[in-house]
Amino acid sequence: MFHTPSSIIFKREVIVKRLSERCSGNMADFEVLDRDLLARIGRLKTRSGTIETPAFLPVINPVKEAVTPKELWENYGCKILMTNAYIIKKHFNEGARELGVHRLLGFPGAIMTDSGAYQILEYGEVGATNEEIIRYQEDIGSDIAVILDLPTGWNVTWDYAKYTVEETLRRARELWSIKSRGDIMWVGPVQGGRYVDLVALSAREIGSLPFDIHALGSPTPVMEQYLFHILVDMILTAKMNLPVERPFHLFGAGHPFMFSLVVALGCDLFDSAAYSIFAREDRYITEYGTIRLEDLEYAPCSCPVCVKRSPRELREMPKTERETEISRHNLYVCFAEIRRIKQAILEGRLWEYIEMRAHSHPALLQALKKLERYSDYVERVTPVVKRRGLFFFNSPLDFIRPETTRYERRLLERYTPPERATTLLLIPDSETKDNRRRRYLKKVISLVCKRYGLDPGSVHVCFCSPPFGVIPVELSEIYPLYQYEYAYPPNDEVIERVAEKVLRYVLITPYERVIMLVREDSWSQRLADSCTKLFSERLLGKNILIFNI
Amino acid sequence: MFHTPSSIIFKREVIVKRLSERCSGNMADFEVLDRDLLARIGRLKTRSGTIETPAFLPVINPVKEAVTPKELWENYGCKILMTNAYIIKKHFNEGARELGVHRLLGFPGAIMTDSGAYQILEYGEVGATNEEIIRYQEDIGSDIAVILDLPTGWNVTWDYAKYTVEETLRRARELWSIKSRGDIMWVGPVQGGRYVDLVALSAREIGSLPFDIHALGSPTPVMEQYLFHILVDMILTAKMNLPVERPFHLFGAGHPFMFSLVVALGCDLFDSAAYSIFAREDRYITEYGTIRLEDLEYAPCSCPVCVKRSPRELREMPKTERETEISRHNLYVCFAEIRRIKQAILEGRLWEYIEMRAHSHPALLQALKKLERYSDYVERVTPVVKRRGLFFFNSPLDFIRPETTRYERRLLERYTPPERATTLLLIPDSETKDNRRRRYLKKVISLVCKRYGLDPGSVHVCFCSPPFGVIPVELSEIYPLYQYEYAYPPNDEVIERVAEKVLRYVLITPYERVIMLVREDSWSQRLADSCTKLFSERLLGKNILIFNI
Repeated sequence: MFHTPSSIIFKREVIVKRLSERCSGNMADFEVLDRDLLARIGRLKTRSGTIETPAFLPVINPVKEAVTPKELWENYGCKILMTNAYIIKKHFNEGARELGVHRLLGFPGAIMTDSGAYQILEYGEVGATNEEIIRYQEDIGSDIAVILDLPTGWNVTWDYAKYTVEETLRRARELWSIKSRGDIMWVGPVQGGRYVDLVALSAREIGSLPFDIHALGSPTPVMEQYLFHILVDMILTAKMNLPVERPFHLFGAGHPFMFSLVVALGCDLFDSAAYSIFAREDRYITEYGTIRLEDLEYAPCSCPVCVKRSPRELREMPKTERETEISRHNLYVCFAEIRRIKQAILEGRLWEYIEMRAHSHPALLQALKKLERYSDYVERVTPVVKRRGLFFFNSPLDFIRPETTRYERRLLERYTPPERATTLLLIPDSETKDNRRRRYLKKVISLVCKRYGLDPGSVHVCFCSPPFGVIPVELSEIYPLYQYEYAYPPNDEVIERVAEKVLRYVLITPYERVIMLVREDSWSQRLADSCTKLFSERLLGKNILIFNI
Repeated sequence: MFHTPSSIIFKREVIVKRLSERCSGNMADFEVLDRDLLARIGRLKTRSGTIETPAFLPVINPVKEAVTPKELWENYGCKILMTNAYIIKKHFNEGARELGVHRLLGFPGAIMTDSGAYQILEYGEVGATNEEIIRYQEDIGSDIAVILDLPTGWNVTWDYAKYTVEETLRRARELWSIKSRGDIMWVGPVQGGRYVDLVALSAREIGSLPFDIHALGSPTPVMEQYLFHILVDMILTAKMNLPVERPFHLFGAGHPFMFSLVVALGCDLFDSAAYSIFAREDRYITEYGTIRLEDLEYAPCSCPVCVKRSPRELREMPKTERETEISRHNLYVCFAEIRRIKQAILEGRLWEYIEMRAHSHPALLQALKKLERYSDYVERVTPVVKRRGLFFFNSPLDFIRPETTRYERRLLERYTPPERATTLLLIPDSETKDNRRRRYLKKVISLVCKRYGLDPGSVHVCFCSPPFGVIPVELSEIYPLYQYEYAYPPNDEVIERVAEKVLRYVLITPYERVIMLVREDSWSQRLADSCTKLFSERLLGKNILIFNI
């Protein structure tokens, strides 16, 4: 029954086939309007209105709230929030049944209720069964509801993790014999914790049940310890094994500095209580970190709270008011971050956005680097047509961007050089790409032909450029091979990677000779050195000719 | 008279001596409160109040303003602005003389007036002499005034650039025979353009005159073309050759995404008209870029403008109102960015802040990399005591941070290993630094001693870690050698640099043998490979022993 991780996790062909269907295929309730990486701008129809995704769901504690749901609706344009059915049941029980959760909270938008699973994770057990919680969520009229899953948690054995997967599946299957309403969207959580083989299994099994939405269970400990690189494995393994057309929720997303990462990984919905937890501790959120109010001299923000009051004035307020004000500020930061992310998706620049954000904390960059393992998959799901030029930051990350991996795959799989071409003339790009100008090329070809006694018709010009590698002249104006900015000069590691790309290209093409142009500027000299070394090691003495200009 | 660039530019000893004086030394008008890199939080006393620096001066066109100076004062906490004496003279002449510039603009804060030099750069000539402009600025009561310098411009020969330097100096010297008031702060602009030898000369000469403030002239073309790496050379050359205790102004700073870079380079004041120029073209500024209003679907901001109105509503407003609203938004972004920068200076994390911002555009990252050339200088002026742990992003930039270069310099210059130490035992750090625990060390030393028949007292443990390199155990808890986060695993280029640091350390220390511990994790194996290769190339066969654990 259990597959090895590799066979479970990387079922690429199946997944890609699924993805190539329109995401909105058979789910009228979730329509995808735009995509970038695994992120999607979508519309999710709920009983209480249509939600645009990706959506951040502020967590509302029904017993004690610093910012009211009404204020969220009116001042923040918040159309969906998260609250806890288990806590509502415990505190209001029948009263909430009569009022319904919308009137209880005073919120006209969509309400997702969690089931108490988080409380299981924190306190070990809750005094309610799956059946009770399912019925209660129906009774109070949640728009989106969650079964009482059994969270895997963090420091557990594989065997226990497997038990949580199976128990969650058992409870998931119960749903259809318990539920009596047809207008609530039900969430099927994926368990397995850090054991990605179990995550894959869990996702495939729960994905075979007719849930409306899926979710990644219990990543809170992972996020509290900033183990974002593990979160990448967990989310992507779940995503690759779930029906792609269903929305995907991340439970307990934390700080807004990681919103863009999880959206890029395909989380359409995520809840977070950080705005309020942090406010309670006098911690002021920015989109790139957290600052304790006592350390804050200059408000790094232009939200209505920060424009009105200085950090000093905030410090002097009574505790309760202060907590509310900081919560408000924190919420402004969270909602603005979501808008930035959505705008970046529209512009097709989400990669650059997460790369910038990843420089808020080393743990985020570490997570982004983890995408190397999934770069094939990410490439295949990323839309081909973008609206704008690309920015490359002279980093190994440039080489795992979908635009880069896609180009190389196509070059190696599909491209054939012109028939008459017997000489490959490699011209490293300059910073301004002025080497690509027609007149310059004509001059260079003529010099090279004279020197080596070649027929100009037999010379095939290819440019060399980080991070793309070899760019045949006839493709050199095709998007994005010209439409990008690069932080010159390339680092050593980048040059070596370009040299490897040159080698891979030369290995599969039938040129009789390879000539590389070297100009005074240091990068072309360094590239030539790298290529010479690599060729002599790997091409058994077949040399690259260097032509100094 | 003219020195070669290298001898002029890198007068490090002199400069460092100057810098070690308190910045506020002999200038009661400019007091430095805090520093990070070359940035300083300071207080500049003007006739119209004390300004906190770094300060962004919005440029106000006295003839046509989208946002009034009064609104700047009341809603943005703007205490200083920039306007143009030449344009005021042309349009209001006597009227402005009678009113004074503060009443003319309706602004109670400090007003800096430019002299028309920018108009020379744009239109070739202005119809006024240096003397007229100096007297006029006195007449209208500018708080900070500029002589009518002759901007070097961009596409000019060295000879012409030299002429602009000399002519500006001539006009600068005229000031003392023309001016009649003693309560105006005068700005002495540095010319030379892209010719850094001339910039150095210009800075030294004009710095020898008793100006209150200095400024970098005419970098606008550099900034419009995003040649920020050239701006780095220009600013640092000027800074290194000017009296460090005087405030430094940057004329025509552009987009807020480069504010943090120029502040880090030591610009205390800078004016920018971008907020208003961009608004005129329906361009919406963010702290990381610019978006055309027509492309904007989601406001990436929480300022009062963006909280009130959606981009769609903004698009539907009449042109004039829209321009004002976008100007307001753009101003909120600029002022919030300044507050973020100031907070980062206080926290001693300005480097990390500019590294994050530099990932807004490749041209900014390219500029940041340029600091490698000045890393000695930057290290010497950067305060030693910081408040918090460091973030490293696994990039060559980590190696030019002042904390890193300072540590290596001190290690190589001042450190001596314990006397009895004959064996160097190198232990590459793990991600969690758990290899540094006492119990683990004890076990490792015992294993190594048994294997090689060594006396434990002769074994000196040093950790290896990017970006610091070799960290002797007895220094390993000293700030910042423990207090940092790193984005593991290190890239290949990083590993090679660490190996070079190991080699440099081994070359100057008298150990008889070097043993490196290799654990299963890949980075220590890769480091060992790199060290083995480097040692065999450079230590003429003296080997590094590898101990697998």
